[in-house]
Amino acid sequence: MVKTKARVGVVGYGIIGKRVADAVAAQSDMKLIGVADIISDVRLRIAQERNYPIYCSVPDFEPSMREAGYEIVGYLEDLIKEIDVVVDCTPAGVPSKNFPLYREANVKLIVQGGEKHVLTNRSFSTFGNYATHLGVDMTRVVSCNTTALTRVIATVAQEYGVSDVFVALARRAGDPTRTNRGPINAIAPVLGVSHHGPDLETVMPQLKDKIYSLAIAGSWTLSHVHMLKVTLDTTPSKEDVVDLFKRTPRILIELGKQGLYDSAQLVEYFRDLGRPRYDRPEVFIWEETLSKDARNNLYMIYDVHMESIPIPENIDAIRAMLEMETDVMRCVEKTDKALNIFKKGAYEGTLFGGVVAKEKVEVGA
Amino acid sequence: MVKTKARVGVVGYGIIGKRVADAVAAQSDMKLIGVADIISDVRLRIAQERNYPIYCSVPDFEPSMREAGYEIVGYLEDLIKEIDVVVDCTPAGVPSKNFPLYREANVKLIVQGGEKHVLTNRSFSTFGNYATHLGVDMTRVVSCNTTALTRVIATVAQEYGVSDVFVALARRAGDPTRTNRGPINAIAPVLGVSHHGPDLETVMPQLKDKIYSLAIAGSWTLSHVHMLKVTLDTTPSKEDVVDLFKRTPRILIELGKQGLYDSAQLVEYFRDLGRPRYDRPEVFIWEETLSKDARNNLYMIYDVHMESIPIPENIDAIRAMLEMETDVMRCVEKTDKALNIFKKGAYEGTLFGGVVAKEKVEVGA
Amino acid sequence: MVKTKARVGVVGYGIIGKRVADAVAAQSDMKLIGVADIISDVRLRIAQERNYPIYCSVPDFEPSMREAGYEIVGYLEDLIKEIDVVVDCTPAGVPSKNFPLYREANVKLIVQGGEKHVLTNRSFSTFGNYATHLGVDMTRVVSCNTTALTRVIATVAQEYGVSDVFVALARRAGDPTRTNRGPINAIAPVLGVSHHGPDLETVMPQLKDKIYSLAIAGSWTLSHVHMLKVTLDTTPSKEDVVDLFKRTPRILIELGKQGLYDSAQLVEYFRDLGRPRYDRPEVFIWEETLSKDARNNLYMIYDVHMESIPIPENIDAIRAMLEMETDVMRCVEKTDKALNIFKKGAYEGTLFGGVVAKEKVEVGA
Amino acid sequence: MVKTKARVGVVGYGIIGKRVADAVAAQSDMKLIGVADIISDVRLRIAQERNYPIYCSVPDFEPSMREAGYEIVGYLEDLIKEIDVVVDCTPAGVPSKNFPLYREANVKLIVQGGEKHVLTNRSFSTFGNYATHLGVDMTRVVSCNTTALTRVIATVAQEYGVSDVFVALARRAGDPTRTNRGPINAIAPVLGVSHHGPDLETVMPQLKDKIYSLAIAGSWTLSHVHMLKVTLDTTPSKEDVVDLFKRTPRILIELGKQGLYDSAQLVEYFRDLGRPRYDRPEVFIWEETLSKDARNNLYMIYDVHMESIPIPENIDAIRAMLEMETDVMRCVEKTDKALNIFKKGAYEGTLFGGVVAKEKVEVGA
Repeated sequence: MVKTKARVGVVGYGIIGKRVADAVAAQSDMKLIGVADIISDVRLRIAQERNYPIYCSVPDFEPSMREAGYEIVGYLEDLIKEIDVVVDCTPAGVPSKNFPLYREANVKLIVQGGEKHVLTNRSFSTFGNYATHLGVDMTRVVSCNTTALTRVIATVAQEYGVSDVFVALARRAGDPTRTNRGPINAIAPVLGVSHHGPDLETVMPQLKDKIYSLAIAGSWTLSHVHMLKVTLDTTPSKEDVVDLFKRTPRILIELGKQGLYDSAQLVEYFRDLGRPRYDRPEVFIWEETLSKDARNNLYMIYDVHMESIPIPENIDAIRAMLEMETDVMRCVEKTDKALNIFKKGAYEGTLFGGVVAKEKVEVGA
Repeated sequence: MVKTKARVGVVGYGIIGKRVADAVAAQSDMKLIGVADIISDVRLRIAQERNYPIYCSVPDFEPSMREAGYEIVGYLEDLIKEIDVVVDCTPAGVPSKNFPLYREANVKLIVQGGEKHVLTNRSFSTFGNYATHLGVDMTRVVSCNTTALTRVIATVAQEYGVSDVFVALARRAGDPTRTNRGPINAIAPVLGVSHHGPDLETVMPQLKDKIYSLAIAGSWTLSHVHMLKVTLDTTPSKEDVVDLFKRTPRILIELGKQGLYDSAQLVEYFRDLGRPRYDRPEVFIWEETLSKDARNNLYMIYDVHMESIPIPENIDAIRAMLEMETDVMRCVEKTDKALNIFKKGAYEGTLFGGVVAKEKVEVGA
Repeated sequence: MVKTKARVGVVGYGIIGKRVADAVAAQSDMKLIGVADIISDVRLRIAQERNYPIYCSVPDFEPSMREAGYEIVGYLEDLIKEIDVVVDCTPAGVPSKNFPLYREANVKLIVQGGEKHVLTNRSFSTFGNYATHLGVDMTRVVSCNTTALTRVIATVAQEYGVSDVFVALARRAGDPTRTNRGPINAIAPVLGVSHHGPDLETVMPQLKDKIYSLAIAGSWTLSHVHMLKVTLDTTPSKEDVVDLFKRTPRILIELGKQGLYDSAQLVEYFRDLGRPRYDRPEVFIWEETLSKDARNNLYMIYDVHMESIPIPENIDAIRAMLEMETDVMRCVEKTDKALNIFKKGAYEGTLFGGVVAKEKVEVGA
Repeated sequence: MVKTKARVGVVGYGIIGKRVADAVAAQSDMKLIGVADIISDVRLRIAQERNYPIYCSVPDFEPSMREAGYEIVGYLEDLIKEIDVVVDCTPAGVPSKNFPLYREANVKLIVQGGEKHVLTNRSFSTFGNYATHLGVDMTRVVSCNTTALTRVIATVAQEYGVSDVFVALARRAGDPTRTNRGPINAIAPVLGVSHHGPDLETVMPQLKDKIYSLAIAGSWTLSHVHMLKVTLDTTPSKEDVVDLFKRTPRILIELGKQGLYDSAQLVEYFRDLGRPRYDRPEVFIWEETLSKDARNNLYMIYDVHMESIPIPENIDAIRAMLEMETDVMRCVEKTDKALNIFKKGAYEGTLFGGVVAKEKVEVGA
């Protein structure tokens, strides 16, 4: 029996969109039908070189796109007729404008973490709630920070139980190309609770009233860094926790003293490895920072590559929504292999998002 | 009756030393006998302009200092014969070399937070343990970060009780003039527990086993920023806590939305105010970041001007060690007036460091 | 005989405006009638503290200004009735909107370098063309970069003659408080000729077709830096040129190796000196970078403090336009004394802007 | 007939060394015999993964290298016995210590631009003097900045003649991983003539007394940027010059307005292209910045990727020294194809370094 591939369209070919497009194209069970945008700059050269059909999202921009030498195969309306699922990666606010179009075309929809939860009334993060998304029509893949937090917290919660979470985020000012953005030589606090705590609750409702987050933004562009305190229900040793992370997918834990002392050296390592765009969709925990005190508090610092970290979760969301894979761990393994982030020995057992969430759904049904 | 002024010498005329010198010179009950150093660059022009007698710390450097046009009135050995107390602000490691000289001369000694606690076997921070320092011979004024932390924690502890502290520090890469220091465009975690937690215990031993800290350093030079979580014993409202800070000396709490959104705008405000060197020896809390949850956790983000924040505490330490003032609040008020950081209505009652510490001392005696 | 003081109003109390206000208030022959703005943030606290009457530029903003606690003494329309000259320091584009109001009120007008030359059809820089401005009704004080360039080029031109100028500018990203501006970790070229070359011609038309400039902007906020090549008509030695700059007002030339290796150390020196806001309205030339080759080319690197450098020129412009002082050097000396940037032995002879320009005017008359 | 491949060893596996190793391994006429170093950090993982035999440069470090899990196949002494040419990429100063060893082993030697010209008494840059290096025993490939400058100046000199060069360099603070290096938020001038002018003369002696350079360093890590003024002997139009660069190898000229406004966006384009380590060994000229005035001066701004730009020249140097290719353009074409920087239509005619230099050699012989 020939299994049909999932037909996927990517709207918005920016920082996230271009990566989702590449990731979809790399999956053996998916087909990238096209990318849609309004830009006419060098970014589209890459799409054209990779033979991604280019659609024009807003007809007004067609002339400039053509003038810049890009072949336009159709409009956004044409693209969505050809696909099973659209991944909308346009800037915050735009997906809600496209929303009626998608609904009318009856295409499944994934939006990104910049959108509000209420747009889709459901948020997704593999480690948190994969099982709740089997067959659903639309969702929002949570932001880079929340994706990373979910992976860490869900992993720890599944194994040890979690009663309290506090995370202090140090956010990069903007992505490297957002060169119009500051601050230069300053630290700006988020004035109030940062959205990351509440956002985690959208994919791990068990944490309601148990999580708080503060955030600052500053003069760097490579990544976010989280300083985390988690109070556990049980009393593992530091070694137990290190070992747990060592066998968890999409989380790396390494000693900084091996030449990975900071985020720039981390980037260099991934440049050297030959990773496309030096992407590191894995959470990276500095092993020396992980510790556990006598009061069951677990502490650690980890690095979050904001440009690439939610990409695997986008792929997982497609499989869940189209019910291409019901077992969360099989889905994660497929995605990771296709993205060359496969981690040996990390795909046994299951994930919190496939267990707790499933039960919740059954109970809720 | 004519009261003799305390005779003070400052050794090391760098970032901290030049400020301590100015601060001593500004006190009506102290006299700056001289500053000692080995440098011969433009920094000494300021000392000369302000008529601070300049001593040469190491005779080998005398020729270069004289050649650069600076009048040298004597050596370090000469300076310490003329003084009651020496404030050693030389780079980390140097004070321990000067130590025997000071001991032999029987001069009281203050070192800075870059030194280890064991050098003086005692550490000082006004808000934490002023009363324990009456008449003592030597101490170490804790670092900028610990000074700030002590002010905040001691204030909260005195009023509400504290059972757990977690602080995530975002440290500036280096002082503005340390232009040889990075990182540029990177975040470097402190690999392990940062020293700030243990350091706080040196001035607030009550917190033993109740505090933990993580830290990163990054690409900015203006200040440190702390993201703090404190678990309280009682249940004040947010308004209570804001009000408490509003009537505490050396702590400012203001709304960021008044044009103080980040640390650079904070600096600008102090530039505009005409503060010398735009110094802000006060802890600055962004009011919008302060919150309290239902589990008695208090959260906040504040700014720590590393160059100036321990200066008032150095002055207080002199007064305590020479028993010039036994009441902590009177000492703080004097210091603050002389440094033009007087805060209206903030010097009533007493401070934790004058109460708890005193009792401890009495118990321990 | 009682000499009436010049009555001055400052519109726009931002980076430049607040400094012009302070500078006007410091002159014995001027009176600051008031400052006008629409802001209601902490910046106005300073104006209020210094007893500068505050006017509201746009009535819509009056409520927010009053709500923030600022006393408003009138509207912009009221202010301009009380003054002889208005210095408009509002953001680029706003002065042209205020223009009809000023014309109607028959008040003399100074705009800043962010405006286009055509708005006032005349541009001013003391060293370049003071004498052409005696009694004129309106002008534009050229930008920080052009002001600095004019001082250096006019000084050299007067003494040695100049046949060709090339300047490569490295611009700061934004003023320190413009924390929304990047780039972080990137260099952005000005795509085309930078405006500085053409702009210099507005105050030194003799340089037409003799000057070219290229510029980049990058990740720092303290100052602009110019790398300059000037081809001279005559053949002074390096020592001659150093000596020339040593006796020129508003230009400092010092050895970097004295602890002034970079712009941050320069700032520190001015912080230590106690300069308000660490301002350095003087061009600062690193002496080691100045050299002269066998082909009569003069090279140098200098620092331009963008926030303060055109302030003295604004004061000079007021005196020229109100014919308060016809001798350029006497005007410069007065301004410099009042601003505490007086330089011993630097006010003999005259300046290019008082000589060449005057002749030109006479010829043109 | 089987042609033997050149046997190459790379000593120093850092920023340059790791790239030279990859570049050698990519050439069909060369064989990488091994890399030698003393490090034991994650950088060596890459060498091991790519099956580059690892040698230990200093026996003292062998234990730490082995402990870190790296297989050591021999010492530096062993490596140099197996090779025709050694490319020494160790930090400045180390090659001179290795020098006697290399001489004794009679291996040909290439050092990098951080070394002094006198060490090898000869410097190399393909575009400047390829033909002078046929068969020579040792040379120094000039630094990244000089390599870029040579490409641009030699190209222009060959076509139009050059009578005067002035370059203002804005240097990155350090390579991205040198996170211990500043300055942060400051600009530091090179105090004196920068070495780049004199350095260019080592490969283009025709420019003696015709070139001068000034330089600053600042708070960024991605690249150097040059602002260039060249006085030509003839009068091409801007279009002529753009066209010239468009058909020159290793030089890209593109419009910034296509989304390449700054160096960060340039990096992003090369990340997207899939270039290993986002390397861009080509000089990149912002087309909008190129202009020509009526006095035959040519101006432009270009970007210099310091990490990769001298890599192709190292490969060329090997071919010249081993006389594997006497025609400079054929050599450049081979190198560029192997490094995936081949530029269509750019390898016709010859290069300055193959013509002028050859004549010079013949005259000199």
